[in-house]
Amino acid sequence: MIKKLTFIGSGNVASHMAMAAHRQEYTIVDIWSRNIANAQHLAKRVEASATDQLQQLRTIADLYIIAVPDDYIEAIAQQLHARLPKRARVIHTSGATSLSVLTPYFSMAGVIWPLQSLSKTKKLNFQKVPLCITSQSATLQKYLTALCQSLSQQVQLINEEQKQILHLAAVFANNFTNHMYSIAHELCSEQQVDFELLQPLITETAAKIKANKPSRMQTGPAVRGDQQSMAAHQKLLQQKQDIHQLYQLISDHIQKLNS
Amino acid sequence: MIKKLTFIGSGNVASHMAMAAHRQEYTIVDIWSRNIANAQHLAKRVEASATDQLQQLRTIADLYIIAVPDDYIEAIAQQLHARLPKRARVIHTSGATSLSVLTPYFSMAGVIWPLQSLSKTKKLNFQKVPLCITSQSATLQKYLTALCQSLSQQVQLINEEQKQILHLAAVFANNFTNHMYSIAHELCSEQQVDFELLQPLITETAAKIKANKPSRMQTGPAVRGDQQSMAAHQKLLQQKQDIHQLYQLISDHIQKLNS
Repeated sequence: MIKKLTFIGSGNVASHMAMAAHRQEYTIVDIWSRNIANAQHLAKRVEASATDQLQQLRTIADLYIIAVPDDYIEAIAQQLHARLPKRARVIHTSGATSLSVLTPYFSMAGVIWPLQSLSKTKKLNFQKVPLCITSQSATLQKYLTALCQSLSQQVQLINEEQKQILHLAAVFANNFTNHMYSIAHELCSEQQVDFELLQPLITETAAKIKANKPSRMQTGPAVRGDQQSMAAHQKLLQQKQDIHQLYQLISDHIQKLNS
Repeated sequence: MIKKLTFIGSGNVASHMAMAAHRQEYTIVDIWSRNIANAQHLAKRVEASATDQLQQLRTIADLYIIAVPDDYIEAIAQQLHARLPKRARVIHTSGATSLSVLTPYFSMAGVIWPLQSLSKTKKLNFQKVPLCITSQSATLQKYLTALCQSLSQQVQLINEEQKQILHLAAVFANNFTNHMYSIAHELCSEQQVDFELLQPLITETAAKIKANKPSRMQTGPAVRGDQQSMAAHQKLLQQKQDIHQLYQLISDHIQKLNS
């Protein structure tokens, strides 16, 4: 059983996860951060000790959670390897980084990836954050599942290939969608149109796919084959080569999928 | 003052708008539909008369609202022209179609465009639907504003150029966003990953821009300049030329905007 957690990192993910675990009466042993003030700030909230020295981490935790920017995960794992026993359970929390950056150092390695955009300054109900678990160790899978199920209502075991695809899918569903909003905002601003007018439509578009396959919910000129509207839009975009190109490529792809 | 409305059409927009007006104690005079059963169904709900003959429409209404598919608006306007006095107030409800299809026939012409995806079978609070008004007649603008303000909390006067841009912006914010969801769904399905896992992130992405400029909320590998993640994603898309091309173009555009 996992009862004692140590967090390497004190950013958005570490903060939300540590506080959620603390509320569920897990013991938080140590919080490490490069910046001791950040470590202390979080440590205080979860009744843990703070340190900025990896070699000072106590070895009594049941699980070490690396929640640092992607570029630092492997280097931290290497340093922890020198400090912790080989059988230590060590996970990271990144969607973008492979589990394989940990497996050379630890046999009990895994990932808990919270599939939500977390911000330290924004309260959120961690029970509603989907947690995806990846591990090659059946034992660790079992332990991580028990931990995650006490923190969230939505827990999913995924393998490394599924994790990669899910990360790519999240780029489309989250990052690229936000970019579509940015373009809409830019177009509105230039004509002094209030972008707020689009908000109810945006909310409804996101809500509709809760119960329906997105491709069935597709509307608009491209899927209707409304050449006249598309020609009018392309004319409006004559001076904006980049957006024009995006408009064309996305419209073509919508038509191809629906033909 | 506008108190008596006639609807030409009985589809999604006509139904929601007629019912909202009926609730606000406007008199609905006639409902026309090609299909008399559809006209009767809506007429019954708003205490109006039903007809499938345009030449039988009574000329006592203060406003004639053409809410039919885009391809039929102009032909309907032409037929109404033969039936109604030149000074009759006639509007359509389409975002895609220009006001200019009405102005050759009626001097008091306008558009009320509800900026929401409306479905007959789905209840919605019409007070929350943004209504955009376009008219070249200052008098009609005034009348339509009073009407719209009694139906919705969000009413905006826009000119023809603004309407065109807003329609294009809605294609990005709504149709293209939905296509991004479709691609994410396709990627997940192929790897037996539950698309539901992405729903909280999708909802949050749409909610975040209520208070923030979308370009400031941009996250992901492209805006971070995370070449490693982008290379991994492109490798996953090797066999999917269309999606690969979209990934590349959207990522490039995100980077260009943020460089």
